[in-house]
Amino acid sequence: MKLQTNISLAILLAFSVLAFASVSRASDELGRDPKRDVRRCEQQCQRQQPYFEEHLCRQRCQQDRVEIERNTGITANERDVEREYERCQEECRARGSESDNPYYFDSKSFESRYATGEGHMKVLQRFSEKSDLLLGIDKFRVGFYEANPNTFMLPHHWDADSVLFIIKGKATVTFLKQKNRETFNLEHGDVLMIPAGTTAYLTSTHKAEKLQIAELLRPVNTPGRYQQFFGIGGEESKSFFNSFSTEILQAAMNLPRDQLEQLLNQQKKGTIVKASQEQVRALAHGMSRRQFGASKGPFSLLDGRPQMSNEHGEFYEVTPNDYQLLEDLDVSVAYCDIKQGSMMAPHYNSRTTYIVLVEEGSGYFEIARPHSENESNKKQQGSSQRYEKVRSPLSKGDVFVVPAGHPLALVASENESIRTIGFGINAQDNQRNFLAGQDNIVNQLDEEAIELSFNMPAREVEEMFQKQQKSYFMTGPKRQQNSLISLLEFAGL
Amino acid sequence: MKLQTNISLAILLAFSVLAFASVSRASDELGRDPKRDVRRCEQQCQRQQPYFEEHLCRQRCQQDRVEIERNTGITANERDVEREYERCQEECRARGSESDNPYYFDSKSFESRYATGEGHMKVLQRFSEKSDLLLGIDKFRVGFYEANPNTFMLPHHWDADSVLFIIKGKATVTFLKQKNRETFNLEHGDVLMIPAGTTAYLTSTHKAEKLQIAELLRPVNTPGRYQQFFGIGGEESKSFFNSFSTEILQAAMNLPRDQLEQLLNQQKKGTIVKASQEQVRALAHGMSRRQFGASKGPFSLLDGRPQMSNEHGEFYEVTPNDYQLLEDLDVSVAYCDIKQGSMMAPHYNSRTTYIVLVEEGSGYFEIARPHSENESNKKQQGSSQRYEKVRSPLSKGDVFVVPAGHPLALVASENESIRTIGFGINAQDNQRNFLAGQDNIVNQLDEEAIELSFNMPAREVEEMFQKQQKSYFMTGPKRQQNSLISLLEFAGL
Amino acid sequence: MKLQTNISLAILLAFSVLAFASVSRASDELGRDPKRDVRRCEQQCQRQQPYFEEHLCRQRCQQDRVEIERNTGITANERDVEREYERCQEECRARGSESDNPYYFDSKSFESRYATGEGHMKVLQRFSEKSDLLLGIDKFRVGFYEANPNTFMLPHHWDADSVLFIIKGKATVTFLKQKNRETFNLEHGDVLMIPAGTTAYLTSTHKAEKLQIAELLRPVNTPGRYQQFFGIGGEESKSFFNSFSTEILQAAMNLPRDQLEQLLNQQKKGTIVKASQEQVRALAHGMSRRQFGASKGPFSLLDGRPQMSNEHGEFYEVTPNDYQLLEDLDVSVAYCDIKQGSMMAPHYNSRTTYIVLVEEGSGYFEIARPHSENESNKKQQGSSQRYEKVRSPLSKGDVFVVPAGHPLALVASENESIRTIGFGINAQDNQRNFLAGQDNIVNQLDEEAIELSFNMPAREVEEMFQKQQKSYFMTGPKRQQNSLISLLEFAGL
Repeated sequence: MKLQTNISLAILLAFSVLAFASVSRASDELGRDPKRDVRRCEQQCQRQQPYFEEHLCRQRCQQDRVEIERNTGITANERDVEREYERCQEECRARGSESDNPYYFDSKSFESRYATGEGHMKVLQRFSEKSDLLLGIDKFRVGFYEANPNTFMLPHHWDADSVLFIIKGKATVTFLKQKNRETFNLEHGDVLMIPAGTTAYLTSTHKAEKLQIAELLRPVNTPGRYQQFFGIGGEESKSFFNSFSTEILQAAMNLPRDQLEQLLNQQKKGTIVKASQEQVRALAHGMSRRQFGASKGPFSLLDGRPQMSNEHGEFYEVTPNDYQLLEDLDVSVAYCDIKQGSMMAPHYNSRTTYIVLVEEGSGYFEIARPHSENESNKKQQGSSQRYEKVRSPLSKGDVFVVPAGHPLALVASENESIRTIGFGINAQDNQRNFLAGQDNIVNQLDEEAIELSFNMPAREVEEMFQKQQKSYFMTGPKRQQNSLISLLEFAGL
Repeated sequence: MKLQTNISLAILLAFSVLAFASVSRASDELGRDPKRDVRRCEQQCQRQQPYFEEHLCRQRCQQDRVEIERNTGITANERDVEREYERCQEECRARGSESDNPYYFDSKSFESRYATGEGHMKVLQRFSEKSDLLLGIDKFRVGFYEANPNTFMLPHHWDADSVLFIIKGKATVTFLKQKNRETFNLEHGDVLMIPAGTTAYLTSTHKAEKLQIAELLRPVNTPGRYQQFFGIGGEESKSFFNSFSTEILQAAMNLPRDQLEQLLNQQKKGTIVKASQEQVRALAHGMSRRQFGASKGPFSLLDGRPQMSNEHGEFYEVTPNDYQLLEDLDVSVAYCDIKQGSMMAPHYNSRTTYIVLVEEGSGYFEIARPHSENESNKKQQGSSQRYEKVRSPLSKGDVFVVPAGHPLALVASENESIRTIGFGINAQDNQRNFLAGQDNIVNQLDEEAIELSFNMPAREVEEMFQKQQKSYFMTGPKRQQNSLISLLEFAGL
Repeated sequence: MKLQTNISLAILLAFSVLAFASVSRASDELGRDPKRDVRRCEQQCQRQQPYFEEHLCRQRCQQDRVEIERNTGITANERDVEREYERCQEECRARGSESDNPYYFDSKSFESRYATGEGHMKVLQRFSEKSDLLLGIDKFRVGFYEANPNTFMLPHHWDADSVLFIIKGKATVTFLKQKNRETFNLEHGDVLMIPAGTTAYLTSTHKAEKLQIAELLRPVNTPGRYQQFFGIGGEESKSFFNSFSTEILQAAMNLPRDQLEQLLNQQKKGTIVKASQEQVRALAHGMSRRQFGASKGPFSLLDGRPQMSNEHGEFYEVTPNDYQLLEDLDVSVAYCDIKQGSMMAPHYNSRTTYIVLVEEGSGYFEIARPHSENESNKKQQGSSQRYEKVRSPLSKGDVFVVPAGHPLALVASENESIRTIGFGINAQDNQRNFLAGQDNIVNQLDEEAIELSFNMPAREVEEMFQKQQKSYFMTGPKRQQNSLISLLEFAGL
């Protein structure tokens, strides 16, 4: 019966229609008060992830209440009411449950690595802790660094290769080599690859703006686990120098103990310290990207022209072909800006899995996920393939993963645009295949394939796929009219 | 005492000899009836895996019974009888236990992914589920596809790189790109590599013959787990299109809801559908391999001339050197045809592990396996290396794995030949080292090495290794004469 | 209070001071008796890790005993004192406690693979069994081979790529190919890469000296697990030939059963056998490295000139750039000789993890290890990074691992030098960054960075870092005088 099969809208409607029937009866008879039911439904909604459905549902619950209070006596079988009510609750639970979305990490999924008064570094939980489906990218970690203007991060190195993307502010990074040093000036949109074990220090050079950096890290020692090594200077307890025996340091430095202690323990302010204007000016004498070949130093992602763009959005990407320092990691970095009320057309990547961080704004995403991937349904793997929707609202600081081959739609909210940074794993030879819009693989089907696939005349299908004039970016979904009428229409009543 | 050490034959003989001794006594004294013992032994035999030994054993038990019934009175210690009997049972159990053969998968080890009236796809269980010894190839999966003549498989893609081998029938495969499409015609022996995420559709173009395809897959997202994505056309519930919110699809396609539903839900026949003669003819307009360079489209494995061949068998193989699309996967595809009553000489591969599917016919294989690999004997790892025989009968649809470095002998049955398809993992720089026949590494030993290794005059050894005139393929083992005489001779009585 | 913070020496001092104080008073008054003092010593011992302190502790236990016995007015049962003293010594021995040191394997961590009267092969436990921190190198194994002079190891192959380093003696290795053979003569310092599956035999050719070989293995089948395959010749039970069915061998070799058994079972002496002077002379006709290009056959690590050297030590290394057979494994082999009383300056490797085997001599190492790596402290990961000292005494046959990025100091004992062989994992593009001595990345810091890092005038810091005239190798730490006086001085009393 269509009422039941026709996804949440119909179910919620059915619930509302039958639920308010229950009003006509004595609550005790029914053993439950419909108003309370509605309140429960609202609570359920509050727990729901998907932004858009939550919104719809809240309104509907509101309408239901209005209806229920307005109307009187419609006869309905109690058991129906029971059933619809339970189904509604399941609906809510299903849509609400985190566990059902293995690809979404809200901004609270980062854990702090260290923090001082001047800045902090945090790292996203391991992907495998979230879901087995993410084991393929578990050797990577995602980090986030923030520091005040005019601050200096002490020399350090990681046991991980890292790729930096400057979100905000200005930075000067210096690499120390045995025989020389290299200094680079970075600003919004710059990408810098730092090989594992490179001793570097970092200055936040903007006078007013905080420095924000998104990082992708690939540990070289233990898969998925990396450490930062502060040694040169820094507090006694926080420098690896101080973990060597005093007698070894004395011998290595050829210094008496008192001088040694003086040298190592003067600095008490931690790993991120305030710097004076003069110091910053002196440190920020590095070269900007323009003075390097593409293969050396940073890469300015947003200097070039976008790969895809129209009035609804822009997409930039740097791959190992453009910036060869990314070759060994086989990683790409993408930047996507979707204007408010717009969306990126449904598409999938042939072999790259993207780890996407929301830089600014809000919206939501939907991923089509094979049902049998769902652990709980593993039994069903024998049966024929089905797909289920995975969606989450997105706001600043959230992270989501788009596995290779999985169709994705990314939608900006109606009142602000959304800007995202994507780190692409397995970057080489990736194809981005769009499923709607002008540039669309469906347009390449030959007639017979169309007929057999759609069981319709080829011309009709082609016309339908031509309806969308735009490519890649287009107007996003409009919020439905929330009148009961439209609901009734939709439910086919 | 030789009777005991001299493997199963001797043990079984010993049993028969001593067992029928027991006849001379009163069963109750012995506490067991030798005839029943023999029946038990037969039952044990029925549970045994190895084709050939099962055969031998059945005959022997038969002979034992005959003997026992014919003869009278030989004195033998009861406890000896007991011991021999128990050893016989252990023997049987050992040879019988599946668990003891981590390299063999019978045709029932495939699980169905999906099936319609017109065809089905199935996938072999994960290798790691079978044994830790197969962890090294666990990132690969083996699939099997079968479809009726004149059928069409809807457009789809996998989140896995795949290598296809056409076993039977004819196929036309079309790849959809953003800007164009490529179509290939395939027939028996053709190999095609399909990169992960390629949207493709497949037509079974032979008028009468079913299409059968063997597949090797390497998932790009989750190691050892892959999914197939049907989207363009197809049933409502089985297209990933339908898992996007209606409002997103409407916006993406720029279509009203009713047209959208019409477009997406016309096709109700599932993912493999019947096609008309005309449609098939139109679809099968692709190019056959000959119109491509070796590096593009399919590769015809059986067109070239075999790498090894004589009247007993033929061996073909394509490596990344011949077909560069296999380079990234580092996979080779081999085809081996062993004539009835023949065998492939004992040999091992230096670094390639082969996953072998039996295309047609029957026979059996033997693999020499270091004893300490056997989990249960892990304790013994300290002691000096020993080897045990792993063997299984082979028939159509079975799969077996030959790990790198492990010596293998492959034998066709005496009444039909056996044809196998092998997917080679770690294909680069593999050496196939034969241990018998004319082309034989033993022939390269210098005299002193021979003397020290065999503790015999070098000339004698060399002569023995020259006895076999053939290379690679030769006459297979003859089934022994099963007279008690030969058994007694062999046992040295 | 300094007495307490100032590491073990001070703690021990405190004890000694109080201990002899206790002598001067009545035990009851002081509320303590020497037995309890010794027990305190135990407790303090328990908190101490390293070799150097072990040495001190032993002496101190000695002193305690002397004190206790010298003094009068102590009510102490002699046996108690004895027992306490022994316990104290055990404590000292026990220190170096494995559990706290995931990077150290003493020579007993090898398990025997096989052993005959003439030689044996052993393999180090799997790295992952020791600690999760070593998962990154778990696909490698370390082996050790030793054989008597004038012995022959029967033809065999491994299902692993292996890199050999000749520690001692002379060897001739022969590779068997299908069409030819290659023979190489090896001596101390030679490195040889043997591809997986290569059939080889090995002769210990030195007249008097044992042959010793260190091996790094990378299994090709099952990660971290490899097997050795003896087939050609050898004892019945120890040749994979004999694990094939007799009927298969007869057919393959085209030999009657009796000849077959004669051929396969003559040799009864196992896999390593005595060889006559003549046989050895005949077998040792190989070519030494000088007759090959760098890319073929062995590489003589110690022929070239050291990368780093002075009167305190020498360091040699061969990387894939010098010896391309190491390219696929991405492995380097390093040889380090530190003279007695000297040390290698604190440094870290940017991306290579070294597995180091002590060839000769003794000493100890210290590694600075991020605290949060310590499983038990995982909770603390949120808090700011700290480092802890990991150290162990080193003697012949010990193995230790130096993870990439982790600062290391390696110290020879004062009475003998230490010589080590290092296998480097992830050899490509490694940088060795020294933290003290003339060649020192700190010298590359610009002024402002120095000021901010050390919170001292740049000139002062630079001067201090210039104090050490040597590079790489230098005089090691001096052992303190162990008299109570020096302890008092040191504690500043």
